[in-house]
Amino acid sequence: MPVFAPPIADHLFTLYELLDFESHAQLPGFEHCTRDVIAAVLEQSARFSSEVLYPLHRTADEEGVHFDNGTVTTPKGFRQAYAQLVEGGWPALTASPEHGGQGMPHMVNFLFEEMLNGANLSFGLFPGLTRGAYVALAQHGSAEQKALYAPKLASGEWAGSMCLTEAHCGTDLGLLKTQAMPKGDGSYALTGTKIFISAGEHDLTENIIYLVLARLPDAPKGTKGISLFVVPKFLVDAAGALGARNAVSCGSVEHKMGIHGCPTCVMNFDGATGWLMGEANQGLKAMFAMMNTERIAVGIHGLAIAEASYQNAVAYARERLQGRAPSGARDAAKPADPIIVHPDVRRMLMTQRALTEGCRMLALWTAQALDVSERHGDAEVRAKADAMVQLMTPVVKAFLTDCGVEVANLGVQVLGGHGFIRANGQEQYLRDVRITPIYEGTNGVQAMDLLGRKVLHLDLFHHFAVPVQGFVERHEGDEALAEFVEPLAASFDLLEDSTRMIRERAGLHPEETGAAAVDYMRLFALTAVAYLFARAAEVSLPKSNDAFHRAKLATARFYMQRVLPDSAALHAKILAGAGPVMAMDEAMF
Amino acid sequence: MPVFAPPIADHLFTLYELLDFESHAQLPGFEHCTRDVIAAVLEQSARFSSEVLYPLHRTADEEGVHFDNGTVTTPKGFRQAYAQLVEGGWPALTASPEHGGQGMPHMVNFLFEEMLNGANLSFGLFPGLTRGAYVALAQHGSAEQKALYAPKLASGEWAGSMCLTEAHCGTDLGLLKTQAMPKGDGSYALTGTKIFISAGEHDLTENIIYLVLARLPDAPKGTKGISLFVVPKFLVDAAGALGARNAVSCGSVEHKMGIHGCPTCVMNFDGATGWLMGEANQGLKAMFAMMNTERIAVGIHGLAIAEASYQNAVAYARERLQGRAPSGARDAAKPADPIIVHPDVRRMLMTQRALTEGCRMLALWTAQALDVSERHGDAEVRAKADAMVQLMTPVVKAFLTDCGVEVANLGVQVLGGHGFIRANGQEQYLRDVRITPIYEGTNGVQAMDLLGRKVLHLDLFHHFAVPVQGFVERHEGDEALAEFVEPLAASFDLLEDSTRMIRERAGLHPEETGAAAVDYMRLFALTAVAYLFARAAEVSLPKSNDAFHRAKLATARFYMQRVLPDSAALHAKILAGAGPVMAMDEAMF
Repeated sequence: MPVFAPPIADHLFTLYELLDFESHAQLPGFEHCTRDVIAAVLEQSARFSSEVLYPLHRTADEEGVHFDNGTVTTPKGFRQAYAQLVEGGWPALTASPEHGGQGMPHMVNFLFEEMLNGANLSFGLFPGLTRGAYVALAQHGSAEQKALYAPKLASGEWAGSMCLTEAHCGTDLGLLKTQAMPKGDGSYALTGTKIFISAGEHDLTENIIYLVLARLPDAPKGTKGISLFVVPKFLVDAAGALGARNAVSCGSVEHKMGIHGCPTCVMNFDGATGWLMGEANQGLKAMFAMMNTERIAVGIHGLAIAEASYQNAVAYARERLQGRAPSGARDAAKPADPIIVHPDVRRMLMTQRALTEGCRMLALWTAQALDVSERHGDAEVRAKADAMVQLMTPVVKAFLTDCGVEVANLGVQVLGGHGFIRANGQEQYLRDVRITPIYEGTNGVQAMDLLGRKVLHLDLFHHFAVPVQGFVERHEGDEALAEFVEPLAASFDLLEDSTRMIRERAGLHPEETGAAAVDYMRLFALTAVAYLFARAAEVSLPKSNDAFHRAKLATARFYMQRVLPDSAALHAKILAGAGPVMAMDEAMF
Repeated sequence: MPVFAPPIADHLFTLYELLDFESHAQLPGFEHCTRDVIAAVLEQSARFSSEVLYPLHRTADEEGVHFDNGTVTTPKGFRQAYAQLVEGGWPALTASPEHGGQGMPHMVNFLFEEMLNGANLSFGLFPGLTRGAYVALAQHGSAEQKALYAPKLASGEWAGSMCLTEAHCGTDLGLLKTQAMPKGDGSYALTGTKIFISAGEHDLTENIIYLVLARLPDAPKGTKGISLFVVPKFLVDAAGALGARNAVSCGSVEHKMGIHGCPTCVMNFDGATGWLMGEANQGLKAMFAMMNTERIAVGIHGLAIAEASYQNAVAYARERLQGRAPSGARDAAKPADPIIVHPDVRRMLMTQRALTEGCRMLALWTAQALDVSERHGDAEVRAKADAMVQLMTPVVKAFLTDCGVEVANLGVQVLGGHGFIRANGQEQYLRDVRITPIYEGTNGVQAMDLLGRKVLHLDLFHHFAVPVQGFVERHEGDEALAEFVEPLAASFDLLEDSTRMIRERAGLHPEETGAAAVDYMRLFALTAVAYLFARAAEVSLPKSNDAFHRAKLATARFYMQRVLPDSAALHAKILAGAGPVMAMDEAMF
C-alpha cells in the first residue's frame, strides 16, 4: 500500500512558473539547462528514486547496518543501488565539468535530492555527504588535492565523510581535542576519536575521504585553533592508485531511532596520515564555507520526508472506509465513506500539503539565490544574492526539518492505529526525519544564527524585507490578491515589529536573543512562506481554469487562513521576552 | 544516566493545596484516605515504579515480546515484576472492597498510574487494561459473572483485555462483524477476528478475561446491534477453578513503533464460548460507560511520559557542557557551561515543565469530579459532577496525549544527537507515547466528542464556564493575581466566542464542527490549564518564600506568557471555518 511518486508537476511549477527558471538558466554555465533537459533530469530522478531506492526503504529500516570488527556492511540492495547511482552520473549533478560533473544548478539538484531522500533517506545520506566533501575540496583543496580526490568524489566512485563532532563537543566545536602532529614530510598524523560520523565506514565505495577537524600542536585554544585535514581511508599515490590502509577505523556504530540504513560511526584516528586543507587554524571557516549548501540540503531532507508522508496519508485516506461524510453518505453503496471526507482528516492532509509545498518554495527560492551568488556575472549581484543566502539558509534548515517532523507526525495520525505499525511505513518517516532538526547544527543553533548573527549582527534583514514590502506595495488595492496579500502584510508587520523589539532589548539583556530565537525563526519562516504562497497565487489566479492551479490557490488559501495565524502567537511570545524563560531557580528544575 | 524519580512534591501540592484533598476525603468511602495513608501510597508507588519497573523499561524495548505459535512471552523481568505488583495489591487500588479492593479515590489511582506508566508504559498497559475490564464487569456484569471474575480481576491474578477493533473498523465500530451465536445453554459461540488487541495474549497471568464486542444473529445493523460478551481464555467452573482452554487464540503480534514490551495482538475467536454482559444490543453503551475512566487513564499515559522525558532532559541539561552563558561564563574553571544556562534550552525545559504540570492539574481536577460523581451523597451533586466529567474527559485524553508527544519531542531536542541514540532513552519516550493520541479513540474523535456532542448537543459548556467566570470575577482588581487572571480571562473570551461562532455555523454547514474540532479542543484545554495555573498561583503567592512555590509561580508565569498566546492563533483558525479545509477537489490531493 505505501506509495512514492515524486510530485514533478509541483517541481516544474515551482521552478518555471513561480521562480522563472527560464531566466535563471541564462546564468553563465547553465546554457545546457533547457526545459527539455530539466524535465528529463526530473523524470529520470523520479524513476530512479521510486524504482530503485524506494523499494529498499522499508527493508533497510528492518535490516539496518551490520558492524563486525571494524567492518560496516550496508543493508541488502544498497551496493547495487549505489552502483546504479554512480553509473547514472547522479552524484556529479552539480559538480564542476572540470571534475567530470554536469554543472547543474542547485535548484535542480535540490529537487533531485528531495526525490532521493524522500525515497530513502538512509541511502540519500551517502551521496549527500560525498557532495559536501567534494564542495569543500573544490573550494579549499590545493591543486594537488583536487587532482587526487575531486573527480572521484564528483563521480561518487569514492565517498566523502565529515568528521567534526567529538564526545564532549557537538555544538561547541571550540572544545575539540583531536590532534594533528606534523610528520615532517608535509603530512600530519591525526589522533583522536570522532563520534556521530554519518557514513564513516561502509562497503559502498572502495575508498572514503574524511574531512577532519583537528588541532595543530601550537594552535590557539577554542575555535580559532581548528584546522581542516583530508584523510583518505586508503592512501592514494600520485597516479591515483590505492595504497596502504590508513590508521583510521570504525570503533562502533550507534543504535538509533531511525535512518537505520546509514551507519552513525565512532571513528578512531590512531596517527592517521592526513594533509592540511586550506590554511592552518582556518578549518572552521573552510568547513562553514560549504555549510550553506549543506544546511539547505538537510532542510531538503525534511521536505523530502514531508512529501513522502503526505503521499502515504492521502493514499490511506482515500482507501480507508470509516464513518460517513457530515453532509450525508458520499457513497451509500459502500459500508462507509473514505475518511478523506471527514473535515478533520482534510485539515490534517491540507496542513501536510501546505507545509510541504511551502517548504519546497522556500528551499528553491533560496537555492535560486545560491546559484546567483555563485554564477552571476556581476559581482554586486553575486554579493547581494550571497547575503540573501546567508540570511535564508538557517531558516530553510530549521523550518523545513521542523515541518518534516510535524508533517510526518500528522501522517501517523491520519493512519490511526495503522500509523503505529512498522509495515505501513508512516512511523518510519517520523523516526527517520527526527534527526534532521538536530544534525548539521540543531535548529536552536540555526535560530541563533538567523537572529543573533544574520539579523542583529550582520543586519541582513532588509534583504528579505525589500522584496516582501515591494510585493505588498505593488499589490495594494488588488482585490483579487487581497486575501493573500493582507495576511502576508500582517505577518510581515509582526515580524518587523519583533525584529525591532529584539534589537532594542538585545544590547541590554544578553539573554533576550536566545530566548526569542526559535519563535523568531518560526515567525520569519511562516512569513517567508506566506510571501511565496502569495506569489504562487498571483501566478495561479489567471490559470484557475485548470485543476493544478485551482489546487495551488486552495492550498495557498488554507495556508493563509489555517497556518499563518500562528504568527500572532509567536509575536506575543517574543514580546514576553526572556524574563519568564529564565526566572526559575536552576536548582528547582 | 537516564533517571526516573516520581515528582511526589508536585503530586501532593496538586492534591492538597490546589484541589483540597482533605475535603475530598470526606466523601463516603474515603474515610481511610488520611494524609498519612495517601503519602504512604504515593511513596510506595514511587518506590515500586522506580525500583522495579523503571529498570525494565529499556531492556523491554530492546527485547520486545516473543510470539511463537500462538504463545506470547513478555520481556525478561515482566513476570516477576507483575507478581510483585499483584502481591503489593496495586491492581486493587480503586476496586471495591467487596471484591477485595482498597476503594481508593481515582485521584490517587491516577497518580499511581502516572508513576507506573512513566516508569514503564509497556508494563503499565497490562494492569491498566485489567482495571478497565474490572470496571466494566463491576458495572454491567451479572451477579454470577461478578462472583466468577471480579475478585480475580481486582487483584490482578487474572488479566483483562478489551476486544473492539476489527481490520475494517476502528473508529467506526458500527461496521463490526464478529458473530455471537446462542448455544442454547445461555452461552454464545463467538466467531470473528479482532485486531490491535493490547495484551491480548501473554504469560503474566494464568487466565485472561476478554470483553468482546460482537453481534447477535438478529441484531440491527450498525452501532445499535452490538453486544458485549465476556470470554475467558480458560473456562471457569462455578467454584472458580480453571477448566478447558477456550477457542480464542492469538494469530500474530504487530511490529510497531513503540511499547515493544506490550503485545498488540490479532485475536481469533473460533466459536469461543462467551456470555452476554449487560443487555443485548447495548454493548457500546456498556463499553462507553467505562470509557471516561479509561480515557482519563490514557491521558495519564501522555502525562506520565511527559514527566519522564522532562526529568531526563533536565538531567542532561545540567550535565552536558557546551558553550557559555550569554552573560558570561557561569563556571570559568570548566571548559564550558552546562547547557541549562542557554535561554533556548531553558525555553524547551520550561515548556516541558509547564505542559507537564498543567496536564497533571487538568487530569486531577477531572478525576476529582469523577470521584464526586461516583461517591457524593447528594444525587444532584453527583449529576453535576458527572456532567463535568463528560465534558472534560475528551479534553484530558486528547490534550494530555498531544502534550506527551510534544514534551517527548522537546526532550529529544534538548539532548541533541544523543537524543536520537536508543541507549539514552529519550527517543523511546517519543516512540512509546506516539500511540497515545491514537488508541482509546483518536484525538480527532475526542475533539468531535467534545465539540459536537458535549458542547453543541448536550450543552455542557457552562459546567466549565461557571467556575472559570466565577474565579475571574472574584479576582477582578486583585493586582497580585492580575498577571494570571488577565491572560486567563482573555483566553476564556476567545473560547467563548469560538463556542458561539461554531454554534451559529454548525446548523447551517455540517462540516463546520469537524473542521473546528481539534483547534477548539486545544483552545479549550489551554484555557482550562490557564484556569488551573491561576488557581495554583493564588495558592502559591502567599507561600512564595519557599522554593517549591516560587517555582510554581515561575512556571505559571511562563505558561501564561509563552504557552497561552497560542489561544489567539487557534481562535483565528476556528474563525476561518471549514471553507479553506474543504475547498480543494478531492482528486487533486
